[in-house]
Amino acid sequence: MKPAVRIAITGAAGNIGYAAAFRISSGEMLGKDQPVILQLIEIEPALEALKGVEMELLDCAFPLLEEIITTADLSVGFKDVDYALLIGSKPRTKGMERSDLLNDNGKIFGPQGRAINDHASRDVKVLVIGNPANTNALIAMSNAPDLSSAQFTSMMRLDHNRALNQLALKTDTPVSDITRLTVWGNHSLTQYPDINHCSIGGESATSLVDMSWYRESFLSKVQKRGAEIINARGASSAASAASAAIDHMRAWVFGTPDDDWTSMGIASTGDYGISEELMFSFPVRCKNGDYEVVRGLDMNDFSQEMIQKTEKELLEEREAVIHLL
Amino acid sequence: MKPAVRIAITGAAGNIGYAAAFRISSGEMLGKDQPVILQLIEIEPALEALKGVEMELLDCAFPLLEEIITTADLSVGFKDVDYALLIGSKPRTKGMERSDLLNDNGKIFGPQGRAINDHASRDVKVLVIGNPANTNALIAMSNAPDLSSAQFTSMMRLDHNRALNQLALKTDTPVSDITRLTVWGNHSLTQYPDINHCSIGGESATSLVDMSWYRESFLSKVQKRGAEIINARGASSAASAASAAIDHMRAWVFGTPDDDWTSMGIASTGDYGISEELMFSFPVRCKNGDYEVVRGLDMNDFSQEMIQKTEKELLEEREAVIHLL
Repeated sequence: MKPAVRIAITGAAGNIGYAAAFRISSGEMLGKDQPVILQLIEIEPALEALKGVEMELLDCAFPLLEEIITTADLSVGFKDVDYALLIGSKPRTKGMERSDLLNDNGKIFGPQGRAINDHASRDVKVLVIGNPANTNALIAMSNAPDLSSAQFTSMMRLDHNRALNQLALKTDTPVSDITRLTVWGNHSLTQYPDINHCSIGGESATSLVDMSWYRESFLSKVQKRGAEIINARGASSAASAASAAIDHMRAWVFGTPDDDWTSMGIASTGDYGISEELMFSFPVRCKNGDYEVVRGLDMNDFSQEMIQKTEKELLEEREAVIHLL
Repeated sequence: MKPAVRIAITGAAGNIGYAAAFRISSGEMLGKDQPVILQLIEIEPALEALKGVEMELLDCAFPLLEEIITTADLSVGFKDVDYALLIGSKPRTKGMERSDLLNDNGKIFGPQGRAINDHASRDVKVLVIGNPANTNALIAMSNAPDLSSAQFTSMMRLDHNRALNQLALKTDTPVSDITRLTVWGNHSLTQYPDINHCSIGGESATSLVDMSWYRESFLSKVQKRGAEIINARGASSAASAASAAIDHMRAWVFGTPDDDWTSMGIASTGDYGISEELMFSFPVRCKNGDYEVVRGLDMNDFSQEMIQKTEKELLEEREAVIHLL
């Protein structure tokens, strides 16, 4: 048996954390031969509920789950972790200004970034899920100067999977026949789900769907899917977000298929003209535990306009938290 | 790729159903090479929430999830299903008489048994999870005269896993080193977690733990674990129950390891002196999609007393719903 790896999950008693922890413990993220130690982090008031989550995890008798640590102390929670899923964040409440939202979350992700910097494994892979995810990831990354920027990512895989599903439903194709889709930019309403390089069962997606459907219906359907789920369930996406987090990490660790790529929020290094020092979603290929941006894709005027719009939003978000970077 | 199998889940918008559906869709129950069609069943008032669950499942872009059907119509929901997980039940409310609880649930599980009888695959495997699970399973089975009694089971695997965990914690052993544990009888406070034939890392469990701990602490800890979880989480066991359901089905389909067995509520055929026509948990070995009771285990006086006590409770439950059988 391989030695166990350590996985930190913040907001572990929340709905996404709850959905993620069991699938991770069963080996869904890192494989059926990889023992895991879960380091579950919550704020003080949620520690009792977290105890309940721990009990349930133990009650599953998962053969791969070697140990569980529950804590509100970041230096304990992030100690030696190989992977960190930052799920817990402060949700937007009614009447809350966007700048307050960004600031309040900055106060969470700054200290988490510092704790990861000071205590985590030097090879830690960090995924930020808590919203506003891109800017939260930027804040965490900026507070971890001893680590590489490339170790911090934000989750776009839920948007990516949602876009795959809409395209699959429209074309009556299995999702696994769809490749080379990209969701660019921010995990927000300005995200740009791009099918221009996408292949469906070997055929060009743009030849299979009507472009007015794509621009007028598909884009907003994917962008607003979160709200649609809340309306139906009376609760925000939880298990699907957890599933996307697992997909993101699996891709990062085990690689993307040769003929495909995925969408990840990563620190921009200027590709496609996107300002550096933004956490921006690009098409990326993963291999041997690393990722790189898929370069040289042809961007038409519409695509250019769309990625500039989402970049502009991220620049504004960055401006609002600049004192935290 | 194998042809898809159909899996019905009742109470699919509830917490256990929600936790189960995603893991089943990812291939955790039937394997990573087995496509599935989910037939999600809810009562009318929960259909809107169920729609939200369906959307989230689709948003996961699970390669194995071929189709989702959502319905309140049992004849649609159980049509041609190969597996049925009966999770939805009426919970006990404050001041409710036990006979009312049994009766109200009988009214759910009788029609479900008939619908399974009339519409499911002739090889359907049924697992009842909704409480009182054993008697609900008995009612469903009794209403499905065209199917074999052996196709109906009730879930004891959560109790089994809870007992494994307590023993693992006590002896500081990995759960996977513990074999031949049994939880006998009813999924209730009278259940009997039995370590008399249990092996821990090759040694007899009874030689490794103090028998007064076993009788005075372990038994009640396992029996009352559900309440302990509710106290901590503020909600009843969900993901651990879903995980146990997956374990139960996996064992039934893929078999138990040669040197081990599991605990399943099954229709008694008189083994160990237990009255026939009760749904009673026995130690069972599974192979090639079938199961059989592990016979010939030595039962000491304490064990005899314990299984008679839980049998008595089940006989009383049966008496309360005899008009539904």
